[in-house]
Amino acid sequence: MTEFALDPLTDDQVAAEEALYGPFTRSVRDLVDAAIRTEAHPEVVREAQAAIEAVTSRLRERQLPGSYGIRYTEGGRLRPWGNVVIGLRNPVAPPLDIDVDEAGRAHTRFTLGAAYEGPPGLVHGGVAAMLLDHLFGHACRAAGTHGMTGTLTARYLRGTPLGVPLHAVAWVEEVDGVKTRVRGELGDADGVTVEATAVMVVPAWARTSG
Amino acid sequence: MTEFALDPLTDDQVAAEEALYGPFTRSVRDLVDAAIRTEAHPEVVREAQAAIEAVTSRLRERQLPGSYGIRYTEGGRLRPWGNVVIGLRNPVAPPLDIDVDEAGRAHTRFTLGAAYEGPPGLVHGGVAAMLLDHLFGHACRAAGTHGMTGTLTARYLRGTPLGVPLHAVAWVEEVDGVKTRVRGELGDADGVTVEATAVMVVPAWARTSG
Repeated sequence: MTEFALDPLTDDQVAAEEALYGPFTRSVRDLVDAAIRTEAHPEVVREAQAAIEAVTSRLRERQLPGSYGIRYTEGGRLRPWGNVVIGLRNPVAPPLDIDVDEAGRAHTRFTLGAAYEGPPGLVHGGVAAMLLDHLFGHACRAAGTHGMTGTLTARYLRGTPLGVPLHAVAWVEEVDGVKTRVRGELGDADGVTVEATAVMVVPAWARTSG
Repeated sequence: MTEFALDPLTDDQVAAEEALYGPFTRSVRDLVDAAIRTEAHPEVVREAQAAIEAVTSRLRERQLPGSYGIRYTEGGRLRPWGNVVIGLRNPVAPPLDIDVDEAGRAHTRFTLGAAYEGPPGLVHGGVAAMLLDHLFGHACRAAGTHGMTGTLTARYLRGTPLGVPLHAVAWVEEVDGVKTRVRGELGDADGVTVEATAVMVVPAWARTSG
């Protein structure tokens, strides 16, 4: 499958790709939601399937051999556009838009629809864990480390509702050699619904000697 | 959003819905993969977007007000078709097909494509946690409890590759009053990549007195 790819686009080329693939991917996200919730007549569903198969077939005429991977711009900026949490080109990604504040805390605000359901009307607990896990990676990078998740622990305080504004935050608690301890919370307007901690580990390939 | 809905379809009606929505949802899953990986000409992408928007608009002419929830058949069988991990009608779900063996262990075999990417070429750690979390619920039900996840801990031993056969298993280790301790593993042909444990808690509404 795809590995890190250089693919050094200029800033203008990146902007053009964003303008093309951003709205396109949003249209697929919207279709995913409609596909789950539709109560259209069976004939409409069958026609929709035929139309979707025709679109897919054209899109596949030229495609990457594997997954998207992570690409770079000429300026060295990352393009993790296939990522399941933040990917501009991944319809499964909500996608999270993550900011890092002056204190190095990674923040995000988002709403999750029908596609992320676990218990009826609630976000799947595993989705909450996934989003917090991803935020931990950002908090690590903000702190100057390259942590990959070693151990992730999530505590569920109550259900996280679908369809309402949610927020999540993550921060580094301690850097201890190749290990970084991080903590985060996800919640709604009434407070925290899921707490998580993780130990992030610098991968062997990223460790500098001496 | 949607809560538990009775919606008691007969077995024949359920079979007809499976025959309609199964292939339809698979067509959307396939589109999601193609959307991430396409390198088609920008004009093809723009035409695809217009076609997708037209399909979505027709599907939305009649739709559920919120998420899918969990519905029942006349016989009392569950239809968690909107679920993000196992939902027949959720294009985000791989979907997992889970079997429970005679010892009460919940098993599943699957392959994850480009839509589940975290690090380049690898399954997002949060996706692995989500799948194991879901399997824990099945293991609990197989053991006759109604656990919701209280605490989930995942340990990442190495990366889980995209595009190859994977398997996961979960089992109950101990039932202690309203708490059930579960354990699980996810891996590829070379062995385990992610281990997880959880404490599942019987929700207050499902506790019987005395």
